[in-house]
Amino acid sequence: MSKKIKLGVLGASGYTGADLVRLAANHPHIEITTLTANSHAGKPMRAVFPHLGHIDLPDLITIDEADWAEVDAVVCGLPHGTTQAITAGIFAKYPNVKIFDMSADFRLRDPMGYKEWYGLDHTAIEIQKEAVYGLSEHYRDQLATARLIACPGCYPTAVLMGLLPLAKAGQIDVDDLIIDAKSGVSGAGRGLKENTLFCEAGEGMIPYAVGKHRHMAEIEQEIGAVAGHEIRVNFTPHLVPMSRGELVTCHVKLTNGASADDLRATLQNRYQNEPFVRVIDEGIMPATQHVRGSNYVITAVFADRIPGRAIVITVLDNLVKGSAGQALQNLNIAYGFDETTGLEQMPMFP
Amino acid sequence: MSKKIKLGVLGASGYTGADLVRLAANHPHIEITTLTANSHAGKPMRAVFPHLGHIDLPDLITIDEADWAEVDAVVCGLPHGTTQAITAGIFAKYPNVKIFDMSADFRLRDPMGYKEWYGLDHTAIEIQKEAVYGLSEHYRDQLATARLIACPGCYPTAVLMGLLPLAKAGQIDVDDLIIDAKSGVSGAGRGLKENTLFCEAGEGMIPYAVGKHRHMAEIEQEIGAVAGHEIRVNFTPHLVPMSRGELVTCHVKLTNGASADDLRATLQNRYQNEPFVRVIDEGIMPATQHVRGSNYVITAVFADRIPGRAIVITVLDNLVKGSAGQALQNLNIAYGFDETTGLEQMPMFP
Amino acid sequence: MSKKIKLGVLGASGYTGADLVRLAANHPHIEITTLTANSHAGKPMRAVFPHLGHIDLPDLITIDEADWAEVDAVVCGLPHGTTQAITAGIFAKYPNVKIFDMSADFRLRDPMGYKEWYGLDHTAIEIQKEAVYGLSEHYRDQLATARLIACPGCYPTAVLMGLLPLAKAGQIDVDDLIIDAKSGVSGAGRGLKENTLFCEAGEGMIPYAVGKHRHMAEIEQEIGAVAGHEIRVNFTPHLVPMSRGELVTCHVKLTNGASADDLRATLQNRYQNEPFVRVIDEGIMPATQHVRGSNYVITAVFADRIPGRAIVITVLDNLVKGSAGQALQNLNIAYGFDETTGLEQMPMFP
Amino acid sequence: MSKKIKLGVLGASGYTGADLVRLAANHPHIEITTLTANSHAGKPMRAVFPHLGHIDLPDLITIDEADWAEVDAVVCGLPHGTTQAITAGIFAKYPNVKIFDMSADFRLRDPMGYKEWYGLDHTAIEIQKEAVYGLSEHYRDQLATARLIACPGCYPTAVLMGLLPLAKAGQIDVDDLIIDAKSGVSGAGRGLKENTLFCEAGEGMIPYAVGKHRHMAEIEQEIGAVAGHEIRVNFTPHLVPMSRGELVTCHVKLTNGASADDLRATLQNRYQNEPFVRVIDEGIMPATQHVRGSNYVITAVFADRIPGRAIVITVLDNLVKGSAGQALQNLNIAYGFDETTGLEQMPMFP
Repeated sequence: MSKKIKLGVLGASGYTGADLVRLAANHPHIEITTLTANSHAGKPMRAVFPHLGHIDLPDLITIDEADWAEVDAVVCGLPHGTTQAITAGIFAKYPNVKIFDMSADFRLRDPMGYKEWYGLDHTAIEIQKEAVYGLSEHYRDQLATARLIACPGCYPTAVLMGLLPLAKAGQIDVDDLIIDAKSGVSGAGRGLKENTLFCEAGEGMIPYAVGKHRHMAEIEQEIGAVAGHEIRVNFTPHLVPMSRGELVTCHVKLTNGASADDLRATLQNRYQNEPFVRVIDEGIMPATQHVRGSNYVITAVFADRIPGRAIVITVLDNLVKGSAGQALQNLNIAYGFDETTGLEQMPMFP
Repeated sequence: MSKKIKLGVLGASGYTGADLVRLAANHPHIEITTLTANSHAGKPMRAVFPHLGHIDLPDLITIDEADWAEVDAVVCGLPHGTTQAITAGIFAKYPNVKIFDMSADFRLRDPMGYKEWYGLDHTAIEIQKEAVYGLSEHYRDQLATARLIACPGCYPTAVLMGLLPLAKAGQIDVDDLIIDAKSGVSGAGRGLKENTLFCEAGEGMIPYAVGKHRHMAEIEQEIGAVAGHEIRVNFTPHLVPMSRGELVTCHVKLTNGASADDLRATLQNRYQNEPFVRVIDEGIMPATQHVRGSNYVITAVFADRIPGRAIVITVLDNLVKGSAGQALQNLNIAYGFDETTGLEQMPMFP
Repeated sequence: MSKKIKLGVLGASGYTGADLVRLAANHPHIEITTLTANSHAGKPMRAVFPHLGHIDLPDLITIDEADWAEVDAVVCGLPHGTTQAITAGIFAKYPNVKIFDMSADFRLRDPMGYKEWYGLDHTAIEIQKEAVYGLSEHYRDQLATARLIACPGCYPTAVLMGLLPLAKAGQIDVDDLIIDAKSGVSGAGRGLKENTLFCEAGEGMIPYAVGKHRHMAEIEQEIGAVAGHEIRVNFTPHLVPMSRGELVTCHVKLTNGASADDLRATLQNRYQNEPFVRVIDEGIMPATQHVRGSNYVITAVFADRIPGRAIVITVLDNLVKGSAGQALQNLNIAYGFDETTGLEQMPMFP
Repeated sequence: MSKKIKLGVLGASGYTGADLVRLAANHPHIEITTLTANSHAGKPMRAVFPHLGHIDLPDLITIDEADWAEVDAVVCGLPHGTTQAITAGIFAKYPNVKIFDMSADFRLRDPMGYKEWYGLDHTAIEIQKEAVYGLSEHYRDQLATARLIACPGCYPTAVLMGLLPLAKAGQIDVDDLIIDAKSGVSGAGRGLKENTLFCEAGEGMIPYAVGKHRHMAEIEQEIGAVAGHEIRVNFTPHLVPMSRGELVTCHVKLTNGASADDLRATLQNRYQNEPFVRVIDEGIMPATQHVRGSNYVITAVFADRIPGRAIVITVLDNLVKGSAGQALQNLNIAYGFDETTGLEQMPMFP
């Protein structure tokens, strides 16, 4: 274990790529050897992310310039639609590389679903078959031996951590899930868009992609698989004036006589040995501030005033457990490192 | 109409009191003659709110020092539990004063409901009977002749503007209302609380009073009255890192074959002549930024991915249409002024 | 006076253009008849600025489509470098139009200075001669008869309001002016730039253009004119995580035995009858929050711990007194309207 | 070295105390055994700081309940005026405990200065004599053997890191230092004050304690000691709407023919081997965002437009290098641990 794996980060000029570097920088078993960013190739990383200028990092190169022979593992932070071909290309020559993809390109097991939701033909259907959905706590066994890990979206991670065990336990009606979601602005990435300017997103709140957000597909896939039938969920995301953080408020109908307390017990029991998951006691409020910058997830369950309903709220940091942190957690699992390595940082508050 | 009415503002050191002064300062038919703030009595208003220091205003006095003989109208921005006795006292000697109460003290028609939700005996049950619930667009006729106006809470205003016409039209199931609400920090008032410090509320999001918020009582009262039976709603508020603004996402089940388009048509028809209400077209997103500082309300309706459901989203400024602006609108109605007087300001963006 | 002037706003898709519309919308003597925005031509204004969707406004057109015969006055919110030719073109055919330019194109009386600071040849040197520098309180007489008003930059407005009277009074050393300036993000405009994204500008502070900011040229021009010799100033701007607001901290060396109290007296005396200027008493702190959204300016003077020095601090809203508000104030002056018309709004706090 | 030292944190319910816990939580040579917070005694730490609820920590106790026999080192995060007696009491019985004080109680070598600036008699004049001013990079040798470390204030740390080497080099006029300082709101602590409420501090900027801030005393002490004579500085702090971060803009007059480049060279030379200090190249802008949450300090030097002047700008995180991080750095020095232990975290951006 003392030999370090060589890590390449693709799309290192985006927020998820940068956060992966932040977390991996002090990882005792990782050496970052390759950083790609096509539009910034040739620059030092500190020119693109000055907050990483305190440490030595390789200069940015294009993906074409990367030498995969020199890389053991790859974390992909590229936009969807670009990763399938790159992954297929790497595996064709270097089948032993492990790829941790933070994009949506391999999350949907059904290539037709990819076409439906992303409007693109799936170009790597063969390797899709071996992709493991990287929700660490729920796919740990398969992750241990996988070479292609499709890390979940930030919203699906938050939703599924709360609802999957409840669906498995038969305590909620999976056909009546109202998921009201809220995200910080970093979820929209570093691209230049008017709605993510400080003056536009600040001091206000706005819904977006109501009834149409692509993350629905993953949620429906995973809960549907547990339920044994296709489901449709209400998923209503909102943009909140904060950089990091995600909070999902899941309004659920109880089944089989379950109470809010039963739901909480199910979750506490399920996650009692998980290092990054906390199911908090009755009446305590979960806040994104309490997980900021860290890989932790907090879930709380509340009784609803409408009899027979409950409210399950989960918070996480969209760039960490919702993306780069979970990718690193999966890498730890895949390489047999202690799962918390590089992820021990406490949340930053205030 | 050229003679100005003399206005007293009680609780002028709170945010709603100050916003009333901001709006009324240039009202052509209002002269602010009395400002009370017991804990700051003796100070000039600019010492408490420097942003109002640009104009001449009376110094702050205690409520006991106020001379009601010199006041035609009163806007009350006091905490609940204090306004009933004050109102009864004023009416006892000056029955012609009109009182616009921004607290919760007269909103619930059933004094037992007040006791249940606020934990206090109602001390002015007789005058409760004449209180008109000041949701301007829905109680305009009664407001025109009332002397005691119970201005609605900020959340109920946002919820009821969207849902009341739909409940009346029989297009939504009033027994399955999921109301996911988000508010800026000013909704918590100017009192010193740890959770509203900049470092605590900033850069993060947290739910509060889940399943227990007192504003539920008003929502259930008003929609229940339309429905003709008692109802219970899910109401889940969250604190958002912005000073002003409120957004309520109402997840509704459609009835009688109604579609999202039908709901939108009902609302557009209902509010087509209302100066402060806009029901926007399909696909446009309503943002609190678009009403900031103004008395406007925007509502949008979206089809849900779950068949037979829809999403009704309303935004307003909690300190204006959610409080001081609506109080002033009601005052305009009660005195026969043009309803928009003093409220013509455009929203401030950015 | 009852006939309304017809107003065209060029560059209506920028923040200054939109704020001009916000302020002018309720002006009793103005009818907005033309709105241009080349990149958004054909759209309704509400598609570009939803917060202005509550009122009727003309649709956006290109500048070429504008019919200047139908316009009495023009407010220009275009980038520097584009306004000189447009202005010359309008005047050539319609010499009676009055133009209020919010860009830098006519601010510098010396065309060589324009070339030096903006890197462009001045293309309208003849009409430059008649341009009046639109610092309302200091050029009121000339503004009353001008047809070309070069509205000052936001920073120069803040700096000059505080320092010009002191320089005139000979109370400060104009050759030792340290001006440490702070601005909200809207000062950078609505263009897409990485550094003004919410995630980049939020929760942090950064200096920019240190020692090189173009607003220096105006400051040196105006104070140099009073001093009777060329001067050079230290001007160090910083970007602050707020949308609106500007605060300039001017560190000055006292001359002729003046004290901080003397400076304050000079300013209070100079501005005692100005409707938008407040020079506050000793020990009170001026905040951008206290002028937000309004045309007010607040200045405070403090004794320095270093003997013989003082600190003059001025705050304003960069989009109002720093831009659109001052343009409207100048328009009021130029047309003989009451100077405060359309600008009576109180600051918005919180 | 494998034995862990037992650490007590006094004042653990404040922001600096909590940040010390955040940083020390994963320190391989530290075991946190005592946490005090008089007003919260009896509670678990997670009740006061939920973001630290992910790890096991001792419950909060009062200072009186602490057993100093069980503690090797103490970090004090108490208000000034309380630490002198507590320190004296501990040393009286346990002279081998090392105390790292984050308050102001031992920073001023002259007890009369303490009286002058803090208005209190110094109650531990004898042990004041052995206090080492804990500016790590400048007092490293003395820190290695000290048992009482007076950690500097956040502002003095930022100012002195930039100016001390320049004063030593004789490159700046120490009698003409204009220090314009900006701080995030956490610098004001977690106490309940109206001006640090979200709605008051947000979206705006305000100066405070102009010409009177107590941190001046430390700056004058340290630079005066280098200069060999008493000095007086201009120090003008401002409150910025961000939680963490501090930026000091030092406007200096050059002496002995030095240029801005010379200053930069002096600093780069002085700090080239320092793990936490970066002196960045010409033209790059230092931002608080680039050090957020970390112990790093960044300094940049700019030529001024006024000949013979320069601008030295330093940024740090007020809770880390400005307080808890520097305390931990000093602890590492005092115990012979690697100086970066526990402080390796990269800044968090966005």
